[in-house]
Amino acid sequence: MAHIIPLNYEQAPLASQAVFDEIKALRNVDDVNNFWKYMASHPETLKRTWESLRSVMAPGALDPLVKEMLYVAVSMTNSCEYCIRSHTAQARKKGMTDEMLGELIAVVGMASETNALVTAYQVELDDDLKG
Amino acid sequence: MAHIIPLNYEQAPLASQAVFDEIKALRNVDDVNNFWKYMASHPETLKRTWESLRSVMAPGALDPLVKEMLYVAVSMTNSCEYCIRSHTAQARKKGMTDEMLGELIAVVGMASETNALVTAYQVELDDDLKG
Amino acid sequence: MAHIIPLNYEQAPLASQAVFDEIKALRNVDDVNNFWKYMASHPETLKRTWESLRSVMAPGALDPLVKEMLYVAVSMTNSCEYCIRSHTAQARKKGMTDEMLGELIAVVGMASETNALVTAYQVELDDDLKG
Amino acid sequence: MAHIIPLNYEQAPLASQAVFDEIKALRNVDDVNNFWKYMASHPETLKRTWESLRSVMAPGALDPLVKEMLYVAVSMTNSCEYCIRSHTAQARKKGMTDEMLGELIAVVGMASETNALVTAYQVELDDDLKG
Amino acid sequence: MAHIIPLNYEQAPLASQAVFDEIKALRNVDDVNNFWKYMASHPETLKRTWESLRSVMAPGALDPLVKEMLYVAVSMTNSCEYCIRSHTAQARKKGMTDEMLGELIAVVGMASETNALVTAYQVELDDDLKG
Amino acid sequence: MAHIIPLNYEQAPLASQAVFDEIKALRNVDDVNNFWKYMASHPETLKRTWESLRSVMAPGALDPLVKEMLYVAVSMTNSCEYCIRSHTAQARKKGMTDEMLGELIAVVGMASETNALVTAYQVELDDDLKG
Repeated sequence: MAHIIPLNYEQAPLASQAVFDEIKALRNVDDVNNFWKYMASHPETLKRTWESLRSVMAPGALDPLVKEMLYVAVSMTNSCEYCIRSHTAQARKKGMTDEMLGELIAVVGMASETNALVTAYQVELDDDLKG
Repeated sequence: MAHIIPLNYEQAPLASQAVFDEIKALRNVDDVNNFWKYMASHPETLKRTWESLRSVMAPGALDPLVKEMLYVAVSMTNSCEYCIRSHTAQARKKGMTDEMLGELIAVVGMASETNALVTAYQVELDDDLKG
Repeated sequence: MAHIIPLNYEQAPLASQAVFDEIKALRNVDDVNNFWKYMASHPETLKRTWESLRSVMAPGALDPLVKEMLYVAVSMTNSCEYCIRSHTAQARKKGMTDEMLGELIAVVGMASETNALVTAYQVELDDDLKG
Repeated sequence: MAHIIPLNYEQAPLASQAVFDEIKALRNVDDVNNFWKYMASHPETLKRTWESLRSVMAPGALDPLVKEMLYVAVSMTNSCEYCIRSHTAQARKKGMTDEMLGELIAVVGMASETNALVTAYQVELDDDLKG
Repeated sequence: MAHIIPLNYEQAPLASQAVFDEIKALRNVDDVNNFWKYMASHPETLKRTWESLRSVMAPGALDPLVKEMLYVAVSMTNSCEYCIRSHTAQARKKGMTDEMLGELIAVVGMASETNALVTAYQVELDDDLKG
Repeated sequence: MAHIIPLNYEQAPLASQAVFDEIKALRNVDDVNNFWKYMASHPETLKRTWESLRSVMAPGALDPLVKEMLYVAVSMTNSCEYCIRSHTAQARKKGMTDEMLGELIAVVGMASETNALVTAYQVELDDDLKG
């Protein structure tokens, strides 16, 4: 039994096709990624997720590459393979080098260790960190 | 019963005092944070963690502010309050503005949602994401 | 080297066969799922897990479909593929439609985002939420 | 140093006040919860989160109480205290009894155990769960 | 509004009092820990959890101190403060020294880092680890 | 597009070859595991991780088998398949029997359930667990 069936453009409801069209136009690609096809049978989720993502990842006080690297770091911490691979690919397109990825991973690893140590030791907040 | 007792400089073994001295000198502070005091009774962990952290967070292909923001994002994803507060404070010292923090948090939130959606839908890897 | 070898009915110790028999009778199936076969070499875990699961999932103040959907939501949050797929299949047998699954996933995604936002912002408890 | 400062209605930017007004009107309350006040300095996140939440939690194929209980279950699995307490309070307002909460928690506990067992045993997918 | 109200012996239903009696007798204590009091209004969960815990933690191929340290390590990884503190206290009663706890924490920290690195690098299984 | 390319000995930079040589000598193996090959393009991470791991896992107040089982328990809790399989294999080499692994898994499962219950019930610390 299939868990959930992804829909291609032709199979998708009209409301989902409209979102596919937007993604393809904005990203200048011929087809959308699987992620979007899995949501196509639930157009509300598809539309809401796409609009939120586009808004959050737009240039702002942080440049898009930094945002993409933050996305990768969160995805690694959440152990989401698809997310790690797809956002790493996006980050490379935006200029992330092998060396930068290597350092990003080193930070993710180190933060995971000290997060665990802080929890294990039950470290109390310093006074100047309260509030 | 105390879980683990943090040690001040005067209470710490010599090997831990030496690490405290290094941290204070490099960071130009009068005292070290609680994190280090909790590890002081186990000098191997203290020394190894300090040396690893110093090395990982040094300037490289990524600038120190970006590294610090990645650290914050991982700590948020791991729900480590102490780590969130202490590394956010570090990031602010390195130039992170309120607006930048607001965008960082928006990315952390959005990535957490799409990570969950990818897992919930069990999205298959696109061919060009394999390997 | 195999991590752990699942055992079929014929290979399982008598104490595990007795549990297999109960599962097959209660669920009216010819064979048990892989989950149970992996525990078959450790009959205490097999028996305890089966009896706990049967008791927890029995009809009560919540109907079995709601319990099954809660199970799916927890499994998605814990990123357990086997658990997501097997409990989604169970929920479908108990009446969950595609539309219901779509809404369940939307809640899981949204809750994951706001959980992350609450942690990132370090939101304090409102007075009426304390205690 | 405060991590992030929550803003009251009077302190919030106009765009955030407008969202506060909507929340107060829809929920028929005098003031909004702390969660919204922490986002008030970043109106884009506040507005987007509120609109997404309102849409996801609206009545649909699942009734609002079931959605709220799913929200509680995800929040428990993510160990978000604020989220557990606030959504449990919401669920009680929508009719969840002590007995229902007790059963919900039993499912969350049991699912967490079997999720861990499946991972620990590295259970392979049954053939009929693939695809 | 209280989230859930813990019950003392006098307030607890008879079925829960019976479990309290068992815990007090087996552990030779005057009163049970808060954990059990929170479950007292739901006797099925209380009884099932106590019986499962007693069975899992009994001496076997692993000695009770090793089991208790494994419990602590899992609780640290799941960031459960109550569980960390209560099971560390149990482990100390069973003979865990400060030095042993220090090493346990070092393993928890290091495993958390390499777990994160494996995920970040998306390391493929070696041939001899498959199956 | 490959996410990250593992490097064999011949492809690795000199600094990484030196670490490979150490691992092969200490472990008395002909080749290193994939884990190390993925880090080979980033020699700082490779060297730091190897030296930390060797130090943390050395005999001390805890014997190496107990450390390895703690490593397995953390890896199971973090759902890291590669880590579960590779450290279980290491633990077997150090003497872990099927029965011991069965009991380890039972503890991991049970701890995961009670961790979830403590969080779900929001259990308050007993007085003697504070501090």
